[in-house]
This record gives sequence, C-alpha cells and structure tokens, in this order.
Amino acid sequence: MKLKIAVLAGDGIGPEITQQSIKVLKAIADRFDHEFEFEDAIVGAAAIDLLDNPLPEATLDLCKKSDAVLFGAIGHPKYDNNPDAKVRPEQGLLKLRKELGLFANIRPVTTYAKLIDQSPLRPERIQGADLTIFRELTGGIYFGEKSTSEDGQSATDICTYSVEEIERMAHLAFKAAQQRRKKLTLVDKANVLETSRLWRKTVKKIAEDYQDVALDFLFVDNAAMQMILNPKQFDVILTENMFGDIISDEASVIGGSIGLLASASVGGDNAMFEPIHGSYPQATGKGIANPVASILSAAMLLDHFGLVEEGDVIRKAVATSIKLNVCTEDINKDNPYSTEKVGDFLEGLI
Amino acid sequence: MKLKIAVLAGDGIGPEITQQSIKVLKAIADRFDHEFEFEDAIVGAAAIDLLDNPLPEATLDLCKKSDAVLFGAIGHPKYDNNPDAKVRPEQGLLKLRKELGLFANIRPVTTYAKLIDQSPLRPERIQGADLTIFRELTGGIYFGEKSTSEDGQSATDICTYSVEEIERMAHLAFKAAQQRRKKLTLVDKANVLETSRLWRKTVKKIAEDYQDVALDFLFVDNAAMQMILNPKQFDVILTENMFGDIISDEASVIGGSIGLLASASVGGDNAMFEPIHGSYPQATGKGIANPVASILSAAMLLDHFGLVEEGDVIRKAVATSIKLNVCTEDINKDNPYSTEKVGDFLEGLI
Ligand SMILES: CC(C)[C@H](C(=O)O)[C@@H](O)C(=O)O
Ligand SMILES: CC(C)[C@H](C(=O)O)[C@@H](O)C(=O)O
Repeated sequence: MKLKIAVLAGDGIGPEITQQSIKVLKAIADRFDHEFEFEDAIVGAAAIDLLDNPLPEATLDLCKKSDAVLFGAIGHPKYDNNPDAKVRPEQGLLKLRKELGLFANIRPVTTYAKLIDQSPLRPERIQGADLTIFRELTGGIYFGEKSTSEDGQSATDICTYSVEEIERMAHLAFKAAQQRRKKLTLVDKANVLETSRLWRKTVKKIAEDYQDVALDFLFVDNAAMQMILNPKQFDVILTENMFGDIISDEASVIGGSIGLLASASVGGDNAMFEPIHGSYPQATGKGIANPVASILSAAMLLDHFGLVEEGDVIRKAVATSIKLNVCTEDINKDNPYSTEKVGDFLEGLI
Repeated sequence: MKLKIAVLAGDGIGPEITQQSIKVLKAIADRFDHEFEFEDAIVGAAAIDLLDNPLPEATLDLCKKSDAVLFGAIGHPKYDNNPDAKVRPEQGLLKLRKELGLFANIRPVTTYAKLIDQSPLRPERIQGADLTIFRELTGGIYFGEKSTSEDGQSATDICTYSVEEIERMAHLAFKAAQQRRKKLTLVDKANVLETSRLWRKTVKKIAEDYQDVALDFLFVDNAAMQMILNPKQFDVILTENMFGDIISDEASVIGGSIGLLASASVGGDNAMFEPIHGSYPQATGKGIANPVASILSAAMLLDHFGLVEEGDVIRKAVATSIKLNVCTEDINKDNPYSTEKVGDFLEGLI
C-alpha cells in the first residue's frame, strides 16, 4: 500500500518521540512491502515562533493532501502562564481537528501484566481492564463562541451540540462496541445540562439500531469515580469533547504510564494519530520521553488503513519490549533506556 | 448557642442518614448546653411528587429564616432516564444554592489509617493525603442560559464567570490555604476556555495579597490524572463549578468510601451542609446507607458557627467508630452495622 503521511512533530518531546514512530513505520514498510512517504510540517509553539501562526496554511495544506497525519504534541509553558496571549499552540491543534473533520477521538486503555505494579491502583481492580473512550472532538465548549465583556469583567464560553454531531459519533461508538464486549456507556451531565439531555435522547434513539449492544448512562461526576473504583465495568465509553478530555486523561493512570496511550482521530477524509500525553516540556531533549504512545498511535494508523497484521506486529513488539523491560525511565527506573534506544529496539523487532 | 436548623432530608437515603445527624447534633446540644431547633421541609423528587416543584416556596422560606440547612440528598432515577422531564429534583438543589447565595462549596478529603485497604489506590500513594476542594457553586455552565433550538436539532449551555464571582471564591480559598499547608492549586482549562483564562488572571492578581501561599495551576485533564497519581501533592484546590463537581467526586475514591465525605456550602447569610454522595436509590429504606458523610457535614456546621470543639467531638467519635469497625456495609463487609446502629453508636460516644 502507498500512504502519504504528514508528520507534525510539534513542541517539547514531540519531535523525539515522533522520530521513533517514523523509524518503526519505515521498518514495517520494508517488511510488508508498503510505500510510506513522510513529509514534515510545523505546528504549535514552534510555528508561532516562526510564523506567528500555530497552524500555518502550508501545514494544513500538507495534511489535506496526505492520507494521514502523525502528530507529536503541542504546548509550551510560556503560553500556559500568560492568560493574555492572543495566539496559543492549542489553537493549532483544535483548528486542525476541525479543518480535517476529525470528529471522533478514540482512546483505548489496556493494562500490561508486567506493569501492573506501576499503576497507582490496586492490581485486582485493574487486571484485565480493557476499555475504549470515544470522545467527540470538534464540538462542544471547545469550539463554541468565546468572549470577554468590553470592561473585561466577565467571560463566556458557549457549548452547543447538534443531533447530527451526536448521531455520527454514536454510530461509530456503537459499531465499535459490536466488535468488542457489546457494552456502551454514555457519560454526560443530563441532570443539569441541556446539551447532555440532547446527547442522552439522541443516543437512546440510535441504540434501537444496535439491539445487541447494552447501553447505560453515567453522570460525569460519577463516571470519574467509577473509572477508579471499577474500570473493568467499562467497554466502550461515549462522551462529549470536554468530558472525554477529562475522563480519558484520568483513565490513563490505569495502565501505569500515560506514556503508553495512543489515540486515533477520525471522521473526515483524513485521519490523525497522536499520543494522548502532552509536550512534557521538562523532558525535552533529555532522551527520557517514552516513545511508545506515539508508536502505538502509528499502529492505530496502520489499522485504520486495514493493515491490521502490521499493526499487530507493532503491538507485539511493544509487548515484548515491556516484558524485557526495554523501557524509558517512567517504567524502568533502575536501568532506563533512552527514547532512541527504545525506538531502535522496537525497529529491530520488526 | 441557639441555632435554627432547617432539615431538608430529600430523596432516597436522604431521610435515613439525616436522621442520624440530628440525633448526633441533639447529643452535642445536650452535652454543650446549646439550643438547636430543627424544622423539616420537603425538597427534590419528594417535593415534585407532592407539589410539582422541587423547591417549594415554604421550603425556601424556612431555609432563609434558619441559621443553617442540613441537607440530605436528592435525585430519582425516573427523572435521570427521562431527558424530556420538565421538572427535575436537581433544579431544587441548584435553586437553593443560588437563592441562599452559597457560592462556595468546601469538600475536605482525608484518609483513615484503618480504611487504607478499602481504597482502590495503593496505600503508599494515599497515606497522609489531606486536601480540600473549593468548588465554585453558583456560577458557570450549571447556571448559564440553557436552550434547545425550535426544531429540536441542537442544544446550548452557556458558561459565564465574572471577576467578582472569581474573586470572592479565591479569597476564601487563599484564606483556607493560610490555615493549612499554604498551597493553592487552581484547576482550569485556560489553554482552551475564555472563562478559565479569566479565572487564571483574576486568581493570579489576588495571589499578590497572599504572598505566604504558593500558587500553582493545573489543566483539568491533568488534574484528573494527578488526583490519582499523587493526591498528596494537593493542599487546597480552587476550581469552577463543573470541574469541582467532577474532581471532587473523583477525589472521593481516595479515602475508600464516598460514604465518609462531607461538604459545606457557604457564602451568603446562610450555610448548607450535605454529604457529597447522592440519593443512592437502590439502598433506600434498607438501612445500609452510611450516615457518616452526613454526620461529618453536621460537624462542619458546628465549625461554621465557631463550635470547633463540638465539631472535633463528632470527628473523634467517627474516628473511634471506624477504628472499632462499627460501620455500615460499604466499610464493614463481614459484620455490617445498620445506618441507625451507627448513628446510635456515635450518639452514645458524645
Ligand atoms: C492540548 C489540548 C487542547 C488538548 C485537548 O484538550 O483536546 C489535549 O488536552 C488533548 O486531550 O488532546
Ligand atoms: C445533583 C447535582 C446537581 C449536584 C451537582 O452536580 O452539583 C451533585 O452532583 C453535587 O455534586 O452536589
């Protein structure tokens, strides 16, 4: 297969981890006789520094022309701590999601037996946990109108959802549930929010088309609790943008390291694959960042194009590296491998 | 001291747990020679059933005339599962908070040595955790305009915050931090939301008046992760309404039972005290609900009126009951005491 992949490595540890994914993808291309073409473009704080624009036209064009986007991370403390900044790295990511029509963000969470003791949760609570979060990604309060009153004395964010936005998400999530353990949990705050009630109503209706899937509902506050009390109860979680952001970062603690968690953003003609962790500025350039989340995102990229065998090869390699403790310091505290060495090792296994 | 306390027991397990708190407060009044006068009023689903109004005028009047409100819980599944319901129990609670001007909800989280093994988290992560969440309670998306488009195809919730709303919360939280370990963490999503940026800006300014308090910031997604990875890093958490709802329910897992967590809502001429758990419909009338969250809320009520010694007597009694395993089935699985028996035992210790 021929694939054109746009590489948006971004800020902080983005470039060093993405480098490892490219290595691994190249090894896959060699072994399975595919043709993957990679092209770099700038995004985030790096792009603001150069062009005062977190998503330059050329970058967006490249993404649109490509089959898929491999994304690193964005964000920089100099913007986080300046509430008056007019241009922010995050705007680049949000605009990219919107422009590419990537309305669904899929975040699988599993555990590795070898890492069970890394988790802050007790082993018996997490052993066998295996869930996937379907987070709506281009609607809700992230994309609603934002404003500050003229006198600067108040600020407003608007959260809107349409039936259409909910339906297309719900179909994806129900279909995924059919391929899994046939359980779908909608997370919302329908006892307070009008948008949540629209979610509940719409999802209930769609559920009629998926009689083999058991649907239940959780208020987001309760879900935040249940995720820790008993993560094994979940199969597919469906939720809106902001709740998905919070709940999926929370769920990342289950497996023992956020450095292992991949995501796929799909929906449009294009698709984007990125680790769920951020740009981790303190680690930049130190060779300590875990490249596995990015590498597993590359595996999701392969799955997306039907190259599931190839994706499995990567996942198996990752499982082997974890079993042998060929891991960065977030996992292997005594004798850590560098970002690059982990990448080399995984490349070697392919 | 003379105190007039409105008792709004509410739905589900609300009445049975509140009954125990009243018993305990009466014992305190006896021992310390106070005069506590209790008066009941209806609220929530119970009030909808009777008067089609989750917060009848008479109930609100009683609360306004009282020094404090002891609140049980509200909520009923028949409303949760009906997105079209026009009147909901939760509206009663939200209106009550607003009408009484209770803009600050304070939720302390601690651990009990005896219960450390009940927690889903590993002991070393939680031993000694001691944090308090200051949740803004009468602003933000809970109270913004809600609407559904005429064709029913879209819904909107509006989130607004004013500098004034943020300032008064921030002062309370900074003052609390000064009395504690002098650390305050603002939880927001300032990289995306305009309201969050107003929070960050305003809180930074107020921090200048509290030079002895160390201020830091966490995005809410990261906070949801940190709460589990390392809850001991937190002292006072300050946050807006919805984030506070989610984060505090999540934090409730730390101590091993949500049935232990109390809250105080303050700000106006009045104050309200309620467990953070909900109405737990499945347990209603079975005598299995843990009354301790409500009883510790009663202790916060006493503190609020400067009766700290009295509050401590209750807290000590609770600690004793936990040490002796005189606990309901959420904690004592082998030989559980009933809701009433736990109340009796605590009453006897006073
Ligand atoms: C960087 C930020 C805008 C982003 C989000 O909240 O969507 C990130 O936290 C994520 O979850 O992908
Ligand atoms: C019942 C509901 C409206 C309420 C809230 O979200 O404020 C509850 O969850 C709470 O946290 O007190």
